[in-house]
Amino acid sequence: MIKNMSISTSSMSVEKQFMPENRVEQVELLNSINDLHGGVVVNIEQPMDSKVFSPLLRASVSQWRQQGKRGVWIKLPIERANLVEAAVKEGFRYHHAEPDYLMLVCWLPETMDTIPQNASHRVGVGAFVMNNQREVLVVQENSGIFKGTGVWKLPTGVADEGEDLCTSVIREVKEETGVETEFVEVLAFRQSHKSFFGKSDLLFICMLQPRTFDIEKQDLEIEAAQWMPIEDYAAQPFIQKQELFNFVAKICLSKSDRNYIGFSPLATTTASGKTSYLYFNNQNMKHLVTSDNQQ
Amino acid sequence: MIKNMSISTSSMSVEKQFMPENRVEQVELLNSINDLHGGVVVNIEQPMDSKVFSPLLRASVSQWRQQGKRGVWIKLPIERANLVEAAVKEGFRYHHAEPDYLMLVCWLPETMDTIPQNASHRVGVGAFVMNNQREVLVVQENSGIFKGTGVWKLPTGVADEGEDLCTSVIREVKEETGVETEFVEVLAFRQSHKSFFGKSDLLFICMLQPRTFDIEKQDLEIEAAQWMPIEDYAAQPFIQKQELFNFVAKICLSKSDRNYIGFSPLATTTASGKTSYLYFNNQNMKHLVTSDNQQ
Repeated sequence: MIKNMSISTSSMSVEKQFMPENRVEQVELLNSINDLHGGVVVNIEQPMDSKVFSPLLRASVSQWRQQGKRGVWIKLPIERANLVEAAVKEGFRYHHAEPDYLMLVCWLPETMDTIPQNASHRVGVGAFVMNNQREVLVVQENSGIFKGTGVWKLPTGVADEGEDLCTSVIREVKEETGVETEFVEVLAFRQSHKSFFGKSDLLFICMLQPRTFDIEKQDLEIEAAQWMPIEDYAAQPFIQKQELFNFVAKICLSKSDRNYIGFSPLATTTASGKTSYLYFNNQNMKHLVTSDNQQ
Repeated sequence: MIKNMSISTSSMSVEKQFMPENRVEQVELLNSINDLHGGVVVNIEQPMDSKVFSPLLRASVSQWRQQGKRGVWIKLPIERANLVEAAVKEGFRYHHAEPDYLMLVCWLPETMDTIPQNASHRVGVGAFVMNNQREVLVVQENSGIFKGTGVWKLPTGVADEGEDLCTSVIREVKEETGVETEFVEVLAFRQSHKSFFGKSDLLFICMLQPRTFDIEKQDLEIEAAQWMPIEDYAAQPFIQKQELFNFVAKICLSKSDRNYIGFSPLATTTASGKTSYLYFNNQNMKHLVTSDNQQ
């Protein structure tokens, strides 16, 4: 399947629904806007009774089908929860939901349904922060599977919606330990499935350079935080026993000896003009970046 | 915020709802199961009238509040769309939706809402496949922003739910061009925001080794496919003009000259026993892997 990088609800053209003039009766239809993929989007912002909505939706779908429309999207703000059942009865299925709205969709043509799928992954970050005494910043958590185990682990967190991972990891370290840092590299990442509600997870282990060293731990989630000799961190029985943790610790140890090159971020511009970070082996590419700058 | 790696609806303990014996009236409550985070989950599988559901939900929430429960989850299969409005009226908000169900949630305590957020990213893959004549496998797309532009691009696609990216990219190349490949490395990745319905996107550019060379293009999405000298690919005006495409082309060129090391995958086991891939600079870590094997 083609990865379409241009799907966006912000780039729709408005189309008014006119009926042919030779029709005696003017049929009222739902307001809709065309999307860039031959479909239409309906956004029910004003209150509407479901008894009004149902026949309007049926007539509109019939019209869109005649027009050869493809995907039909209905965005229902949570205040319009009274219309969900009616849309489902007209053949719509759920596509995704955010706290304040539900998006339903229906594929009209006989051809293969090419509705893009919903978001599938959460992005997690783990921070490897080492000071000049080869001590690594570690925490003990108040909840979750590590609660009460005495395991010292790297600070971890989840990227907020729309947040770059190189920003997330700095924010999480600051929130949990009060330590300010600078982003250096992605050392490794792990992809995991069925980690929450059947969804997947990408965890990026990042090297950060500390800018401050005093620890002010956050009480809500963190039981304890400290700087710990990196060898002691890696030698913990739990870390040694668990293959994944052990391997990440070895990568961090290797990095601490300057024997490891990860991916570093470069702010760049996409075809549509957005700023996006590209992460890659910058050390191997230095000659290219330099020759580019000299052109 | 702590990245909780243990959230799973599959690991819940069942608790029956008993009322205190000294209550005269036995109040009926919704069936629920406790989750591992002090909350409860309700799954309405059987048909229920919303007039029955509303008072049951109200009484149940009241009881859970007294018990000090935290997050309350209601999973409504799409066949139970008639209950959405009632749940919203009782203070629930949408958490996420899949085609066949809607998950609603309500945070009961006065403390900070720690409901984990919904999936935020889609995972895309782009394939750099080069044969022994330094020709790269390229396609022209039938739809989207590249339609009709004549731009030859790398095959790209979206990872299916639960699919490892090192599997996705092989599948996409096979689907679009018929060429069979083997995964080598992640060369770079790009994080992009607001790319579809406000959601984010991680695109992994992967190096693959071809195992077959005959092209059988897929007609639905692909206009044309061919092997093209890598220098011609990189010299296309569109590629040269767009910063991101240009940089990815330079990374591919560097890799084709064996001057670039990316991240390669290692199948490993997480603390919970799942197999997950860890992607890292394997070349820098070879000594560690070897010393591990010799222990």
